[in-house]
Amino acid sequence: RIDGDRLWRTLMDLAKIGATPKGGLCRLALTDLDREGRDLFVRWCEEAGCTVTVDEVGNIFARRPGRSPDRPAVCMGSHLDTQPTGGRFDGIYGVLAGLEVIRSFNDQGIETDAPIDLIVWTNEEGARFSPPMLGSGVAMGVFTLDHVLDIRDTDGVRLGDELARIGYKGSVPVTGHAMGAYFEAHIEQGPVLEAEDVEIGVVTGAQGQRWYEATVTGRESHAGPTPMRLRRDALAGAAVMMEAVEAIALEVGGDACSTIGRVQVHPDSRNVIPGRVWFTIDLRNPDPDALSRMDAMLRERLAAIADKRGLTLELTDFWAFPTTPFAPELVGHVRRSVERRGLSHRDIVSGAGHDAVYVARKVPTAMIFIPCENGLSHNEAENIKPEHAASGCAVLADAVLATAG
Amino acid sequence: RIDGDRLWRTLMDLAKIGATPKGGLCRLALTDLDREGRDLFVRWCEEAGCTVTVDEVGNIFARRPGRSPDRPAVCMGSHLDTQPTGGRFDGIYGVLAGLEVIRSFNDQGIETDAPIDLIVWTNEEGARFSPPMLGSGVAMGVFTLDHVLDIRDTDGVRLGDELARIGYKGSVPVTGHAMGAYFEAHIEQGPVLEAEDVEIGVVTGAQGQRWYEATVTGRESHAGPTPMRLRRDALAGAAVMMEAVEAIALEVGGDACSTIGRVQVHPDSRNVIPGRVWFTIDLRNPDPDALSRMDAMLRERLAAIADKRGLTLELTDFWAFPTTPFAPELVGHVRRSVERRGLSHRDIVSGAGHDAVYVARKVPTAMIFIPCENGLSHNEAENIKPEHAASGCAVLADAVLATAG
Ligand SMILES: NC(=O)NCCC(=O)O
Ligand SMILES: NC(=O)NCCC(=O)O
Repeated sequence: RIDGDRLWRTLMDLAKIGATPKGGLCRLALTDLDREGRDLFVRWCEEAGCTVTVDEVGNIFARRPGRSPDRPAVCMGSHLDTQPTGGRFDGIYGVLAGLEVIRSFNDQGIETDAPIDLIVWTNEEGARFSPPMLGSGVAMGVFTLDHVLDIRDTDGVRLGDELARIGYKGSVPVTGHAMGAYFEAHIEQGPVLEAEDVEIGVVTGAQGQRWYEATVTGRESHAGPTPMRLRRDALAGAAVMMEAVEAIALEVGGDACSTIGRVQVHPDSRNVIPGRVWFTIDLRNPDPDALSRMDAMLRERLAAIADKRGLTLELTDFWAFPTTPFAPELVGHVRRSVERRGLSHRDIVSGAGHDAVYVARKVPTAMIFIPCENGLSHNEAENIKPEHAASGCAVLADAVLATAG
Repeated sequence: RIDGDRLWRTLMDLAKIGATPKGGLCRLALTDLDREGRDLFVRWCEEAGCTVTVDEVGNIFARRPGRSPDRPAVCMGSHLDTQPTGGRFDGIYGVLAGLEVIRSFNDQGIETDAPIDLIVWTNEEGARFSPPMLGSGVAMGVFTLDHVLDIRDTDGVRLGDELARIGYKGSVPVTGHAMGAYFEAHIEQGPVLEAEDVEIGVVTGAQGQRWYEATVTGRESHAGPTPMRLRRDALAGAAVMMEAVEAIALEVGGDACSTIGRVQVHPDSRNVIPGRVWFTIDLRNPDPDALSRMDAMLRERLAAIADKRGLTLELTDFWAFPTTPFAPELVGHVRRSVERRGLSHRDIVSGAGHDAVYVARKVPTAMIFIPCENGLSHNEAENIKPEHAASGCAVLADAVLATAG
C-alpha cells in the first residue's frame, strides 16, 4: 500500500522549484535551482530516516537500512534535473515514487533484508551538460570522473566547478557502490500507453541511440552582390542536410527516429551568407541493424550534399549507446506485480535513454512506465494522472519488496 | 592628383582598430572599437583643417569650407562600422577616399565654390543594430530619430544608449543638413568588375531589397519516444522553408538573390524536437516586378510548407527599399572622369544597399565602385588593389570638383 495523495503533494511541492509560466520546469543540472531541489529532497529523505551520502560526481544516495547490512542494496532512482523547457515529471516522478515507497514502508513497519538505496543521478538530461546520463555513466565506468568534471556548458562553465559551487561535490568514491538491483519508474514520454489506454508499461529495454555533431563550412560573402551560382552557402547546404536527416527516419520506418535539436549559424548576420553552420543529430532505433543502416545513410547523404555544393562537412560521433535489454528476472517482478494488482499493462521498449540504461551494464535493472498526457515530454505541458502515478509507485514498491526480501 | 600611397597607409592605419586574426575587421557599430575608429577619423579631419560636427544619431560631418559658404555642400561619405567578420574596406574605403580628396585639395591649394562635407554615417551594416543604413535613414527622414534610438541589439542594448556611451550623441539636428550632392566611393562587394578586368564601376543605381523575419511554431517534444508521424517539428519545417527560399532566387534567375543569414532554434537542446524556429530572409532583385514576384512566391510557398506540416508560420516584413536609380548628371560626372583618365569601366547596378540609396531620395547622388578580390565582401579575407583604391579616389576627386565648382 502506498499513499497516492502524499506522492502527488510531494511532486507538486518539488515542482515549485524552477516553475515556468507555462506550467513546466526549468531546473537545469547544477544550477542554484537544482541545488534547491536537491536540498529539499535530502531533507525529505532524512525526515524519512535515511542516511544520505553524495559521491564525487554529485549522485545522491539515500539509504534505508536492511536486516542484512552487507547485502548489496536494492536501488530505486532517477534524476531531478530538467530540460530548459521541461515538465514536472520527467525523472522527478521516479525519484519521488522511490521516496513514497520508503515512506510507506516506514508507515507500515516493513523491514527488508537488503538495504534500500534511493538514488538521484546527476545531469541525466544532457541539456546543460551533454551528453545525457553523466552521473550514472561515471558510476558505471562508462566515462571517467575527470572527463565528466571537465565537460562545459555552452557558456564554457565546467561541470566540476558547478558541482562544487552548489555544494554537491561529495567524497564517496563514484564507482564501486554495491548495487544488487536497480528499479527506475518513469513517465513513458511517448504516446503508446495512452493510446492503448494502458496503466503500466513493463519496460523490457531501451532502444539504441547515436548522436552526432555536424559542422558545414562554406564561404562567407555578401548577401547582395554575390550571385547565386558563386555562393558556397553553408546554411543552404545545412538545410538540405536537415531535410535528409528527417528523411532517413521516414524511409527506414518502423520505430526509427531522427532529430536535429540545436543549430548555430556563423557569423549570424542578416546580410551575410553563412560561412559555417553547426548542428546536432540524434538517430534512434530499437533494431541495431536498422540503426547501423541509418548511420551509414547519414554519412553517405550528408557527404554527398556537401560535395555537390562545394561545402566541407565534418561529421563527428558525439555519443551513442546500443539497444539495451533489461534483466528478465527483475522485469518479471514488475510483470507479476502488475498482474497481481490487476492493472492493464503492456511490454514496451523505452524510446528515451535513462540512467537505467547505464546501470543495466553492471547491475540487474528494470523500469516501470506510466502514461503521460498526449505522449508529451520535454515540453512544459508534460502531465500525468495522479492515479497512474500511484499505480506506478505501488508496482515499484512490490518489485523492490520482491527483490529485497 | 591624389596620393595613392597616403590613402593606402591611412586605410591600413584604420584597419588596426578591430583587426581580426584572419586579417579582417570586427568593429561593430557603437562599440568601443567604433569609437576608437571614429576618434582617429575625427583627428585626421581636424588635422586636415576641417570643422567636425556630429548630429543626433551620431553621423559625423567634416567640413572643408568653400568660397560660397551658403551653397549646399557637395558631400562624400560612407561608413566605418563593419560586419562581425567583416573586411577592411567595406565602407571604410569610401570614407578614407573622401579624406584623401580633402588632403590632396589642401596640398594643391584647390579651392571650391561650394563647401565640401565628408560624412560618416552611423550603423550602415545592420549587423549589430538592424536594419542597415540607420544614420542616413534618419537624416533623410526614412526613419524617425526616436524609433532608431530605441532599436536594440541582440543583447537588448539600446542604440541611443550606446551612442551616448561612446560620446557620439551630437546636438546638430539630424534632418535638414544642406546637401547639394552626394558621392560615395565603395568596393563592389561582388565579382563583376574583377571578372571583366575593369577598373571602375559607374554605378547607375541599386537593386531593390525585401527583408523578412519568419517564426515557425510547432510542438516541443522528446526526440526519442515521439514517433515521426506525430511530430510537429518546427526545425524540420524551417529547413524545407530555407530550401524553398533558395529555390525562389534560382527559379526567378537573372540577378535574383535570396539569403538566410540568421537562425535561432528554441529550446536549442539536443534531445528536444524544436518547438520554435526564427530566421531572417533577404530577397533582392534589380527588376521591381521580379522582386514582387519573389515576394509572392515566398509568402505562398512558406505558408504551404507550414500548412502541410501542421506548423504555424508568422512571416513579417522587416525592411525593404525599392530599386533606386542615381542622379544622371552626377553619374555623368563620374563617367566623364573615368573616360578622361582612360580608366577601363562599365556601368553597374549595386547589389548591396548603401547610405547613398537613402541619400538619393532627397539629394542628387552617385557612386563609384572599385573591384574587390574574388568579389568577396562581408568576409575577413576582403581585399582590394592599392592601384584600384587610388583610381577610385581620383575619380571621386574629379566628380566632386566638377560639382563643387
Ligand atoms: N528521459 C530522458 O529524457 N532522457 C534524456 C536522454 C534521451 O534523450 O533519451
Ligand atoms: N554595403 C553593405 O554591405 N551594406 C549593407 C546593406 C546590405 O546588406 O545591402
